[in-house]
Amino acid sequence: MKKLAMGIDIGGTNTAFGLVDEDGTVFCESVISTEKYKRFDDYEAYVKALCEAMHALIDSVSFEFNLIGIGIGAPNANYHTGMIETPANLWKFRDDEANPDETRRMFHFVDDIKTYFPGVDVAITNDANAAAIGEGVFGNAKGMKDYVVITLGTGLGSGIVSNGEMIYGHDGFAGEYGHIAVDSRTEGRECGCGRKGCLEAYASATGIKRTAFELMAKMNCESDLRDTPFSKFEAVMLSVAADKGDALAKEAFRFTGEFLGKALADLVATTSPEAIILFGGLAKAGKWIFEPTKWYMEENMLATFKNKVKLLPSGIEGKNAAILGSSALIWQSAIR
Amino acid sequence: MKKLAMGIDIGGTNTAFGLVDEDGTVFCESVISTEKYKRFDDYEAYVKALCEAMHALIDSVSFEFNLIGIGIGAPNANYHTGMIETPANLWKFRDDEANPDETRRMFHFVDDIKTYFPGVDVAITNDANAAAIGEGVFGNAKGMKDYVVITLGTGLGSGIVSNGEMIYGHDGFAGEYGHIAVDSRTEGRECGCGRKGCLEAYASATGIKRTAFELMAKMNCESDLRDTPFSKFEAVMLSVAADKGDALAKEAFRFTGEFLGKALADLVATTSPEAIILFGGLAKAGKWIFEPTKWYMEENMLATFKNKVKLLPSGIEGKNAAILGSSALIWQSAIR
Repeated sequence: MKKLAMGIDIGGTNTAFGLVDEDGTVFCESVISTEKYKRFDDYEAYVKALCEAMHALIDSVSFEFNLIGIGIGAPNANYHTGMIETPANLWKFRDDEANPDETRRMFHFVDDIKTYFPGVDVAITNDANAAAIGEGVFGNAKGMKDYVVITLGTGLGSGIVSNGEMIYGHDGFAGEYGHIAVDSRTEGRECGCGRKGCLEAYASATGIKRTAFELMAKMNCESDLRDTPFSKFEAVMLSVAADKGDALAKEAFRFTGEFLGKALADLVATTSPEAIILFGGLAKAGKWIFEPTKWYMEENMLATFKNKVKLLPSGIEGKNAAILGSSALIWQSAIR
Repeated sequence: MKKLAMGIDIGGTNTAFGLVDEDGTVFCESVISTEKYKRFDDYEAYVKALCEAMHALIDSVSFEFNLIGIGIGAPNANYHTGMIETPANLWKFRDDEANPDETRRMFHFVDDIKTYFPGVDVAITNDANAAAIGEGVFGNAKGMKDYVVITLGTGLGSGIVSNGEMIYGHDGFAGEYGHIAVDSRTEGRECGCGRKGCLEAYASATGIKRTAFELMAKMNCESDLRDTPFSKFEAVMLSVAADKGDALAKEAFRFTGEFLGKALADLVATTSPEAIILFGGLAKAGKWIFEPTKWYMEENMLATFKNKVKLLPSGIEGKNAAILGSSALIWQSAIR
């Protein structure tokens, strides 16, 4: 009988899920709103709605198959414990402001899903790790034992694989490479984590947007980008502008590539991967982000590692990438 | 029959070796000069002298035992290939200056040792990795699956263990944490690797010595340290001075701890270890180096990891530590 794994991608706005076979074909997929359930006391209703929608999707499949497991990618998810810890945007407390300590909250997500799918293997990991496993099982890291996936979205996430295994670390939260210090000047950019000068404040979709506005102040060149206010500005505007020759946009990519490339040179010295894959929205800017990143990475690399490490685009990216990545959490052990 | 493993530690001056049992007891040990064989065409004579000395040591043991393997720790050693690559201080070419490219040279060390010990398991790794494996098998990381050992000697080396396995990386040279960039100002300190601002130019025995001389220029306080020229200065003088209340020495430790602690906070975000062990000469300064390092590590840590990671001294350090570490390369697989 055909075997399929369910992949779930939990985002702040929507939760997407789909059934994936061992070749990475997504047979069917669906989506529910996450946002609708964002208050803490909506959590149980969210789990119920998600599981009912998955059962409906399973019932809609016209052939018989064996559901070999459910893989989940979610922010702040812990592979070791099966829990989602301190979600920043999900299931907020009614009394967040009254009880700030209470915002550190654990959700037994894997166990809760299992109550709706008895006997089915369920695993969870954070979204960057899911992307990394997806690249290893279906994408550009297929066959590699040592590689890194960097997700360049709203923030910067990383999934580091060594000796063929994801580095989760002792507490399950390793791979927070977006929060290494790259700019410890007192005026380093404020990061969402409450500190200053973290890599993701520079190298991410949000980071390059911040850079663009710093450059509007610093440079005098004309640029259409100056017509959009910060609150309406999106990182994708920069690659559109760079394609048209906009000097400010090109400098924004060079600056971003400098921070990212130097940080990747350090990561190479630490873990010596065969390849680094850039994944996510900002990576879609193609040569604009890859070329300066590669240049600064090589320029700052310890001699031993120079010209050894591939810098690659995603091999699974598209609308299904996150579902594929989450399902790969199941497939990685099934295929072995 | 009793089982013993040979551990070999190759240093620039001497090569020490000894027979170690599974409890970490060193039954006997000996040493030959490395320095005497430092020209490239001395390499074969060095291997012969080392193996003859090891056979003599084995013959000197009064009871019968089974030699289960030979573990070697050496600078620039590659676990994957069994080779020592580009040794900086060993087996130099006669014509180094005439043929600078020729200095990148591979020595098939494991294979060459095997010709003198047919049928015996031989493995090699770099000295920091050997220290890390030693801590895992015999020392303060016993039972841990995710930990880091930082060696603070002439340079800064690191051995990173994740999921119970050493991270060697794709090319076998991972763990060069001494060469991450911590000071990318154009006036960053020159590093032995040819670049500027590497961590080991600040956090190592050599690094703190450089800091002491920077502070002699910066500070006005009286200090006995001002009586010793740079060429005669040793890092150990700083802990002796700090014990006597020397303000310059104490500031040198604070400054070093700041660089090291910040770098360790970043390493925690990357690999999330259960513990970080400080090993080697500078670590013997005890509270003078541990206290500021711990303070800056916690101060710069991402909230998720705060107060979770132990900062520990070596559990094997002493004159035999390097032999123990190298022998652990054999014991780690034998014990499993």
